[in-house]
Amino acid sequence: MPNVQRSLQPVPFTQVQLTDGFWAPRQETNRRVTLQHIHRKLQETGRIAAFDLNFTRKVPSPIVEIFGDSDVAKWIEAVSYSLATHPDPQLAQTLDGVVDKVIAAQQPDGYLNTHFIVVQPEMRWKNLRDWHEMYCAGHLMEGAVAHAQATGQRKLLDALARYADHIDATFGPEPGKKRGYCGHPEIELALVRLYHATGNPRYLKLATFFVDERGQQPHYFDIEARERGEDPASFWAKTYEYCQAHVPIRQQDKVVGHAVRAMYLFSAVADLAHENNDPSLRETCDRLWDNLIHRRMYITGGIGPSRHNEGFTEDYDLPDETAYAETCATIGLIFWNHRLLQFEGDRRFADVMERGLYNGFLSGVTLSGDRFLYENPLSTNGSRHHEEWFYCPCCPPNVARLLASVGGYFYSTGAEDVWVHLFASNHASLEVAGTALTLREETQYPWDGKVTLQMELERPATFTLHLRVPEWCPGYRLSVNGKALQVQPGPDGYLAVRREWQSGDTVVYEMDMPVQLIWSNPAVRQLEGRVAIQRGPVVYCLESVDNPTTPLDRISIDPEGFLKACTVEYRPDLLGGVAVIHGPGRAIEAEGWGEVLYRPEAPGEKEITLTAVPYCTWDNREPGEMRVWLRA
Amino acid sequence: MPNVQRSLQPVPFTQVQLTDGFWAPRQETNRRVTLQHIHRKLQETGRIAAFDLNFTRKVPSPIVEIFGDSDVAKWIEAVSYSLATHPDPQLAQTLDGVVDKVIAAQQPDGYLNTHFIVVQPEMRWKNLRDWHEMYCAGHLMEGAVAHAQATGQRKLLDALARYADHIDATFGPEPGKKRGYCGHPEIELALVRLYHATGNPRYLKLATFFVDERGQQPHYFDIEARERGEDPASFWAKTYEYCQAHVPIRQQDKVVGHAVRAMYLFSAVADLAHENNDPSLRETCDRLWDNLIHRRMYITGGIGPSRHNEGFTEDYDLPDETAYAETCATIGLIFWNHRLLQFEGDRRFADVMERGLYNGFLSGVTLSGDRFLYENPLSTNGSRHHEEWFYCPCCPPNVARLLASVGGYFYSTGAEDVWVHLFASNHASLEVAGTALTLREETQYPWDGKVTLQMELERPATFTLHLRVPEWCPGYRLSVNGKALQVQPGPDGYLAVRREWQSGDTVVYEMDMPVQLIWSNPAVRQLEGRVAIQRGPVVYCLESVDNPTTPLDRISIDPEGFLKACTVEYRPDLLGGVAVIHGPGRAIEAEGWGEVLYRPEAPGEKEITLTAVPYCTWDNREPGEMRVWLRA
Repeated sequence: MPNVQRSLQPVPFTQVQLTDGFWAPRQETNRRVTLQHIHRKLQETGRIAAFDLNFTRKVPSPIVEIFGDSDVAKWIEAVSYSLATHPDPQLAQTLDGVVDKVIAAQQPDGYLNTHFIVVQPEMRWKNLRDWHEMYCAGHLMEGAVAHAQATGQRKLLDALARYADHIDATFGPEPGKKRGYCGHPEIELALVRLYHATGNPRYLKLATFFVDERGQQPHYFDIEARERGEDPASFWAKTYEYCQAHVPIRQQDKVVGHAVRAMYLFSAVADLAHENNDPSLRETCDRLWDNLIHRRMYITGGIGPSRHNEGFTEDYDLPDETAYAETCATIGLIFWNHRLLQFEGDRRFADVMERGLYNGFLSGVTLSGDRFLYENPLSTNGSRHHEEWFYCPCCPPNVARLLASVGGYFYSTGAEDVWVHLFASNHASLEVAGTALTLREETQYPWDGKVTLQMELERPATFTLHLRVPEWCPGYRLSVNGKALQVQPGPDGYLAVRREWQSGDTVVYEMDMPVQLIWSNPAVRQLEGRVAIQRGPVVYCLESVDNPTTPLDRISIDPEGFLKACTVEYRPDLLGGVAVIHGPGRAIEAEGWGEVLYRPEAPGEKEITLTAVPYCTWDNREPGEMRVWLRA
Repeated sequence: MPNVQRSLQPVPFTQVQLTDGFWAPRQETNRRVTLQHIHRKLQETGRIAAFDLNFTRKVPSPIVEIFGDSDVAKWIEAVSYSLATHPDPQLAQTLDGVVDKVIAAQQPDGYLNTHFIVVQPEMRWKNLRDWHEMYCAGHLMEGAVAHAQATGQRKLLDALARYADHIDATFGPEPGKKRGYCGHPEIELALVRLYHATGNPRYLKLATFFVDERGQQPHYFDIEARERGEDPASFWAKTYEYCQAHVPIRQQDKVVGHAVRAMYLFSAVADLAHENNDPSLRETCDRLWDNLIHRRMYITGGIGPSRHNEGFTEDYDLPDETAYAETCATIGLIFWNHRLLQFEGDRRFADVMERGLYNGFLSGVTLSGDRFLYENPLSTNGSRHHEEWFYCPCCPPNVARLLASVGGYFYSTGAEDVWVHLFASNHASLEVAGTALTLREETQYPWDGKVTLQMELERPATFTLHLRVPEWCPGYRLSVNGKALQVQPGPDGYLAVRREWQSGDTVVYEMDMPVQLIWSNPAVRQLEGRVAIQRGPVVYCLESVDNPTTPLDRISIDPEGFLKACTVEYRPDLLGGVAVIHGPGRAIEAEGWGEVLYRPEAPGEKEITLTAVPYCTWDNREPGEMRVWLRA
């Protein structure tokens, strides 16, 4: 029987103050630039004004995008997180104005969706498959929960509870209710959050209904299509795999369809396994996790290779140049793995979370905070760049809300346990073994593997400190108060140190962080004979700006020679401070080849020195080529 | 000043009887299977019955495809060619019935297009950009010319001359005529053929007008779009590059847009350079040829990598797995190069022609003659196969007409010259130096490079025999009547032997035909570090059926080791008789890798023996993977 009880409680981001050189500057940019930038764009595109309910339909116009409300909702959530740790009266006022607009738009029956109030009131709840109505509702709920926690005000939370009540009165297994659920999962996990914020168990029950009903026969999407006078077979995506509604969730054994939808759904599934004590849902998570992580995930934590369905294709199909790997999908992957991690503190979930955070998530926003990637290719000939905004701008506010709350992914606690999942300089205020604990962490992570943890305790207390040994880490040393400890990681992949801890106790944890060359499973046909450079959790890439003398596709490396000769250089002046990696490579020479396209003699090669930078910082300087996987 | 006078006259296919083991069986299958198969499909899809003019519009229905007439026309052309060399009373009767239907459909004013007679008579000549009206006319003209030559009957030729008169009365530079031209070039080259078949110079003049007017401002496609009440900017392809009408032909310096359109247009341009003594058109050909052959052609002679526009993208963009490389485009490439070859007998044009014929053209039809490829990828994971027919079935009858007339690509003559461009056992009846010459060629080409030519002359005659030294050929020996000759190829790439020839003279020409590994220009980013196997004109590929133990993407070869150890084996039992190539390779081993997707240790490798078969025979056995470019 799989475990369905979460032994870990995540420590909220409000109790973790990041003071490091990696995340803290990103958070500051998020506050100072990104949240403002998104607010401006939401205004320019009419998404905020839409809540005034006096717009008219103009096609094509961003305002009528049926998921416009969700973009505002995610911004509310992100701003709330930011205010919770960094009060800012002006930002708080802006937020309050938007929140009041949202509340004012709510209809007497609790309904709250600008498009279906103004443009198509007759089509309310008529196309759950395509029209994102509950998706928008779910994001508004998440925004409301965050807003209440940040401001202590219940006005938005109460409004969304009324909306949830309306939805609960409309949908469910009871006679007279529709047996529907949203084509784009999101409301399921949001209802669990709303349940916790309000204590109302009906929201948990409704989330459970949505998850259980999904994919059942007769199929709700068929029924509502016929009610609209449409042939269900005319569904553009051709398959309900697109929205993970092809079969009930407990029968799904491959991660299919739209990647963001899958991650949001699976996050709710992980929540409900715990909330409802449901082993079949935990089994479902583990089964789908194995498929995703072992067959369908990019080395960056990007998922969903195909633009066609914004999602998954086949096992081991991981093309680098055409990778879709939507930023939101990696964010969803982080959400899901963070939830799974709380069950028994198994390292593999933290490994995935960290892979996503340091690579495919952060590549989604520039260091300047005002340019974003929707798709995250692992190779480009120079034609792909971060953009100010998107026609479908789901990613920017998603980045903002995760960045503002990333401290919440670092620690968990139990009755007599503290888990350290991620590493960065920070001050964390925890409760453990009946006492308050302040952890002060100092580290140069991810550029260096040495971590120093200092304890401040109200009184001495006996508990177990669990330190994660990352998947990438080939060796480590651990000492407490200068005394080396010989500890092996448990089956969970963490080092467990149980003792009576006192104020002033100092733990030094040194993870070896060599440059590594990573191969992919031979089943990945697009990556045969290629390697990626990684150090610690950070995947590296080549960019033209650092390697200007040769097109990147002409470069190859000799793995052994590269590992022997490569050097790591911390460059405080570069890209906000990063460790770059230099090493020897070879480049095919075009010189002397001539005009012909084909010839029976190999081109010449020359020795070159390569410089690799973190993938998450690509396209922050002059535009050019980029490449993660190099020919070996 | 470039040469605009053709010194060479191609020897018609009717004078070349192929007796070899390579082309002759393909021609027999073409006669026995392919022509019948296409006829049946044309009937099933209503394309022949359409000429009865009593169909009603049913959308979507193949019958209303606006280019349906062209498919029938190409079948008429192919059958005519076949009857010219292989009389067949039953086939002749079938042809006659179809021809009579076509003639009967002609309108009193000469107009002849089933779609615009029956379905949209009000839209006649209203959308030249998209609707293929003149394209269909052109193919009917080519069919009529072939029909007259094969049967001696002028009825179809006369009908098409009337149609050409109608078009000539409608389009042209004269006041009152439309200054239009077809979005899909074809009628231009057809009018040149019609001019030669009828002697009417107005057809040459009209072809000249169409070529000269193309791309001029104000743009005809803009004008007619506005007359239809459409915004010209709403053109789906976004650019008139799609149909080579973005600028006048003399200003074009890159081969752009739809590949088949480009080749048909350029074929007419080559014809008109000669017919009109126009150096600017010859210059245009040479300029575009350089761009195409040195930057935009697959090693198979496939052209046009993109499915989006069925055509060209950028210089050096030659992805293998997603190659579109339409069969018709390679056929057009062969047409164009055959025309260019006649100017001064420059080998480079024959090289391209041969590359296309032995590779990207023949891959378009199975050895069984009843399955076809529209797209010709250079790599597949097993999902791509020949098909019985296509919604747009342009390729099958195009294959049939070229196969039936392929003998016409082998020889040219001048006053005192005979050129041997291609090699295969055959008997050819030529006229040279005022006498009849029968050439009897014996060879196992393309499996062996030895060619024996025996002369039968009415009387001794002095002329120059020009033997092509193919681009791929690293060495050769030549003897006449057993006596070795030391001859170097001229700047044209041919060996020239001038002497008084007598009946019984025997020339033995031995081309070295080693296995070669071919590299691509370093500018082709998709092919860096990869090699293709070639021997003589034949490009090889790996197929799963011959290499079942390992997925093809896991295979690499050591170029030096492969060339040293590889062997050639002629297999009369295989694929109609082919030379296969065996050689050593290495395969990445999946065994022992485990479940993980990424790891810092390289996978194992094992030694294997590879078997490669000609690319043109791929997908003729069990379905599976195929790959031309191998990791070196």
